[in-house]
Amino acid sequence: MSVPDINAVKNYLLGLQDSICEKLQQIDNKQFIEDSWVREAGGGGRTRVLSQGSVIEKGGVNFSHVHGDKLPASATAHRPELAGRHFQAMGVSLVIHPHNPHVPTSHANVRCFVAEKENEAPVWWFGGGFDLTPYYGVDEDCIHWHQVAHDACEPFGEDIYPRFKKWCDDYFYLKHRNEPRGIGGLFFDDLNEPDFDTSFALMRAIGDAYIKAYLPIVQKRRDVPYGERERNFQLHRRGRYVEFNLVYDRGTLFGLQSGGRTESILMSLPPEVRWSYDWQVEPGSAEARLYEHYLQPKDWLGEIK
Amino acid sequence: MSVPDINAVKNYLLGLQDSICEKLQQIDNKQFIEDSWVREAGGGGRTRVLSQGSVIEKGGVNFSHVHGDKLPASATAHRPELAGRHFQAMGVSLVIHPHNPHVPTSHANVRCFVAEKENEAPVWWFGGGFDLTPYYGVDEDCIHWHQVAHDACEPFGEDIYPRFKKWCDDYFYLKHRNEPRGIGGLFFDDLNEPDFDTSFALMRAIGDAYIKAYLPIVQKRRDVPYGERERNFQLHRRGRYVEFNLVYDRGTLFGLQSGGRTESILMSLPPEVRWSYDWQVEPGSAEARLYEHYLQPKDWLGEIK
Repeated sequence: MSVPDINAVKNYLLGLQDSICEKLQQIDNKQFIEDSWVREAGGGGRTRVLSQGSVIEKGGVNFSHVHGDKLPASATAHRPELAGRHFQAMGVSLVIHPHNPHVPTSHANVRCFVAEKENEAPVWWFGGGFDLTPYYGVDEDCIHWHQVAHDACEPFGEDIYPRFKKWCDDYFYLKHRNEPRGIGGLFFDDLNEPDFDTSFALMRAIGDAYIKAYLPIVQKRRDVPYGERERNFQLHRRGRYVEFNLVYDRGTLFGLQSGGRTESILMSLPPEVRWSYDWQVEPGSAEARLYEHYLQPKDWLGEIK
Repeated sequence: MSVPDINAVKNYLLGLQDSICEKLQQIDNKQFIEDSWVREAGGGGRTRVLSQGSVIEKGGVNFSHVHGDKLPASATAHRPELAGRHFQAMGVSLVIHPHNPHVPTSHANVRCFVAEKENEAPVWWFGGGFDLTPYYGVDEDCIHWHQVAHDACEPFGEDIYPRFKKWCDDYFYLKHRNEPRGIGGLFFDDLNEPDFDTSFALMRAIGDAYIKAYLPIVQKRRDVPYGERERNFQLHRRGRYVEFNLVYDRGTLFGLQSGGRTESILMSLPPEVRWSYDWQVEPGSAEARLYEHYLQPKDWLGEIK
């Protein structure tokens, strides 16, 4: 039986943060700034933010490792019996908001929880995933994104990708809008089978896949021309991103409830946003196509039965 | 014993919406547009929105009357025993976001709930209040705002204003920022004493007071010059408004949970907003004064013991 090697997880996560930041810096020609912080109640983190770069309007890639006396409810939706336990949570969480409306916003997260109780074996689980939020979608980008997601999961079993893909579609959904947040990707939580090493390896495969999935899309779309119309559409669609993160997102709520560092948690919010009453897109337009084609959960790889 | 005359409440609320819209139109020289809507599950509303007026950048004054089979949890924080009952809820809810950062954002709401159960007397209660969110505060405006609030409550007992004022300070508070939303005003909920007529009269007094409290401030500050700096400050501060409404506000959560009309509920969100990582104000500046002086709950009338 494998023993949870928490230190190995931490080292992986710190390295993942480094490598993702490095790759994003290479395409942006701007550096992330770093804020290290310590949490009074225990733990801390390394927040990295890039603002007003050449490609990225606002992006954050955060590592955090917090521990606390009582696991908050938001962390244990499927494990209510663990609420109130002493816990550790560590993860890398990132959101990239590009300037150009033709470059999608992306989000990724990998995390590990350990809930401890005296005289009992610690309970651990992994979670994470990545999802893409285009404004002006391109089919080949969506297929590429899902192909990389698929390939990361494949060594762990044929059922993983379809399961995590559907979980992602279900999770990143705005009920009050009857609308998915984007074209999905992968989402998983409560992963603790068949054992620690395999679960950790799957989490690593997904963490490592993010940059392979995102960078080629950024490179292809970063120089597509756009004007006031496309920018306005992007600013309004970013409103949906804010609504999702503040109303539904488990990670955001967990962070705010567990006394996390507010500026690090809310770095996910877009730099500029608009809300207009009853804002609508023109039928038949490129903007309408987002709703009709891209914001409809679909089997991008044509292989899910 | 007074019997709940729900129809009288409805008539008052419709008249209040009319009179508030009329007064705001007079100072804006622009008309509200109206959307009437019907809710499939029962009830409906009259949404009125004014966008890009001469004073108001975005404002909504909504009447709604919804009924449903199961009272959602967000409506019954203090009355868990009523959750799941058949209910009616009606109210007027408004948020005004002016262009000029020297004119504060304001919010008001008055509402009435009735929870019904077969073979039992209906349980009714009133709630509401109004609160002010300045960007660049002015002491005399804050005193005026609170004086009107005080005077509306006074006929109902000397303890009402201090109690509702403190309730407002406690309610409109962003825990994750350790920050009040603004300079407060009045907030009350679960009001059902001493009887229906008196509770309804207090709710009316507060509903009627809003425009007396807000209009003079708009008129005094609408032509104060401002530039890019003040606008930028306003856009960032509006981010706090979004955070409050989506993370904490009971009315917003009730609306979204009870299947309300999303565009009517979220008309409260500002038209344009910014979030920058770790955004700070310059020490000693006019912007810093908002935090140091105005975002500190205080006894504006110098009369609370």
